[in-house]
Amino acid sequence: MVNFSDRMDYLKASAIRELLALTRKPEIISFAGGLPAPDLFPIEDIKKATAAVLEENGKTALQYGETDGYAPLRKHIADRMFKRNQISTGPENLLLTAGSQQGLDFIGKLFLNEGDVVVMESPSYLGAINALTPYLPKFVEVPTDKDGLVMEELEHILQTTDRVKLIYVIPDFQNPSGRTWPMERRKKFMEIVTKYEIPVIEDNPYGDLRFNGEFLPALKTMDTKGLVMYMGTFSKILAPGMRVGWVCANDAVIAKLNLIAQAAVLQTSTFAAAVISKYLDMFDIDEHVSRIVPAYKHSCDLMISTMDECFPEEAVFTRPDGGLFTWVELPDYIDTKVMASQAMEKRVAYVPGEGFFPNGGNNHCMRLNYSKEPDDRIVEGIRILADVIKSNLR
Amino acid sequence: MVNFSDRMDYLKASAIRELLALTRKPEIISFAGGLPAPDLFPIEDIKKATAAVLEENGKTALQYGETDGYAPLRKHIADRMFKRNQISTGPENLLLTAGSQQGLDFIGKLFLNEGDVVVMESPSYLGAINALTPYLPKFVEVPTDKDGLVMEELEHILQTTDRVKLIYVIPDFQNPSGRTWPMERRKKFMEIVTKYEIPVIEDNPYGDLRFNGEFLPALKTMDTKGLVMYMGTFSKILAPGMRVGWVCANDAVIAKLNLIAQAAVLQTSTFAAAVISKYLDMFDIDEHVSRIVPAYKHSCDLMISTMDECFPEEAVFTRPDGGLFTWVELPDYIDTKVMASQAMEKRVAYVPGEGFFPNGGNNHCMRLNYSKEPDDRIVEGIRILADVIKSNLR
Repeated sequence: MVNFSDRMDYLKASAIRELLALTRKPEIISFAGGLPAPDLFPIEDIKKATAAVLEENGKTALQYGETDGYAPLRKHIADRMFKRNQISTGPENLLLTAGSQQGLDFIGKLFLNEGDVVVMESPSYLGAINALTPYLPKFVEVPTDKDGLVMEELEHILQTTDRVKLIYVIPDFQNPSGRTWPMERRKKFMEIVTKYEIPVIEDNPYGDLRFNGEFLPALKTMDTKGLVMYMGTFSKILAPGMRVGWVCANDAVIAKLNLIAQAAVLQTSTFAAAVISKYLDMFDIDEHVSRIVPAYKHSCDLMISTMDECFPEEAVFTRPDGGLFTWVELPDYIDTKVMASQAMEKRVAYVPGEGFFPNGGNNHCMRLNYSKEPDDRIVEGIRILADVIKSNLR
Repeated sequence: MVNFSDRMDYLKASAIRELLALTRKPEIISFAGGLPAPDLFPIEDIKKATAAVLEENGKTALQYGETDGYAPLRKHIADRMFKRNQISTGPENLLLTAGSQQGLDFIGKLFLNEGDVVVMESPSYLGAINALTPYLPKFVEVPTDKDGLVMEELEHILQTTDRVKLIYVIPDFQNPSGRTWPMERRKKFMEIVTKYEIPVIEDNPYGDLRFNGEFLPALKTMDTKGLVMYMGTFSKILAPGMRVGWVCANDAVIAKLNLIAQAAVLQTSTFAAAVISKYLDMFDIDEHVSRIVPAYKHSCDLMISTMDECFPEEAVFTRPDGGLFTWVELPDYIDTKVMASQAMEKRVAYVPGEGFFPNGGNNHCMRLNYSKEPDDRIVEGIRILADVIKSNLR
């Protein structure tokens, strides 16, 4: 048998996806995934929406559709982006994708030649690193602090680095760090990228899940040159099993992304898109979101207060204002990959931090998710984890 | 704004997908798509299956799942591949994809470095050419006759061509030609590829749609070296709007395809897969297929007999034993792209042949689909097309 392509030498298994299989065992207390709480899925409403779609519109919902995706859903998304995010866009600037993950793959395919540079927060979303890796870019990491990406460092990198093709950022409740950029950083960021004219991926899967502090505008609202490709998804506000997300971008980029979607997959599921669209016709998704958010705030508060109580002072962690994750930094000498096996033996799973750094290293960090487990298991799991950490302290 | 990647210079709009938007107008008689007849969708049964999934299993169906896809559906597919195609496989050798189109993208990503060679039937499926093009292969076309790929030509190409990484074929009711390989060609093909050890994509979206002649075994059943990657889909036997297909391949290939799927899209829709799986629990899909097949036979017979009646003798066309398409060859001097505009003015759409040849040329061919239009419009459309063809004869 002939060899695989060169890009396969660089593609690694996602630590998160590999863990997902393990953590399906009910005895495992999993802080590993980014799974929304299944108890919060609006199952009955989705059932009604599906029945209505198939009754009223079954032939369309089950048939092939246009590449850019089911038009009524794109209209809903454009309306909601304006209402929630103050982003003015039309359905024609949207492409539906199979979750925002697919948007990352398509954007990588669109922009990256081998050796081009992608600039990312350090740490950044492991799935974005994986999605872009097959296009063989060089990743340059921008240092971050508690307020997210450090803008002086970004500017320095753009000044001194050739072939920067993309900047990938998550300004709201970042995965994995749980950090959110304040307003002045957003402005500064857009000033810099507008000056250097570098295309930006603004990934915003968690923006609706704010439980503390004030709403902050998307980078896309300050985008005077059409540089920002904004990605949203129904995964965290409705149901990830639908696999429906979207990219919002300028005309030229959307046209090219359409070509890529055509070639790669023809289109996103008409069925899933039609069901979501009908759900949005029949029900108030913002009311649904307003039921999720307090539940996640409760879980987050519980996890953080338990960490305050049990974790040793050597463990430094984020206190998120929204989203699904907190991020823990331990002393340098602790390898969280080694420690993960110890924790798993005690039935607790988390994601070691290393995978969130495209150039590796930083073995002393870990990501914890608080959205999936019930209260008693959050407390139990954090206590177990605290003991495991303590047993690794020198 | 920086430039797009080099691969974008080669990616063209799919003639089929571009036409799909146009042919949605109800006044257009479309022989252009490969759309299954929407009247044959089992809408009521899918409604029942969806309700049952959401009642019994809603939390799982709406949640993230494993990368390789919803396990109960993979089990169903493995069972049915054995029953219908005599292919022995387990669920662990299957990867669910968003239609078989996505399988093509993933396989291209897995195997192809720039400049590698993909061998294809001439003509071949336009969507496969588009899916593989972003990986910048060189396409080598194997001549075909009325029984499909000419095996001597294939052997000659494999003998004389370096860097052949993949062979892509559709032995059953090929898209676009409507031709089917007889048994001896299948055996000969497997003899040749087994000798040269070249990975094969066997794309079989139409295999179940046989309305004349005897069932013929898949290449995969004669695959002693694990070279064949077999692709199937629910698009043509159930509903394309679901976007659920699959790849069946050896352990090493499936493991790598899983990595690619993880990175590109995380997974296929749990929701769509769970609905299809439940449909297969509750209903007999083969009974459903046995209702589709006579309808397509009827439409095919009607189209072919109308062509026999009205088309000039200069038009040579396939008499398919199944599938969705017939293929028409006109005199060399007729450009079917130019003629397509003339036909469209008279409200008839088809796909010009050129797009089915990866290296272009062959402007005198066209693909006609018979599965979508009702009887009166098939007759009317073919009569119009006959007149258009005649007006182009010298």
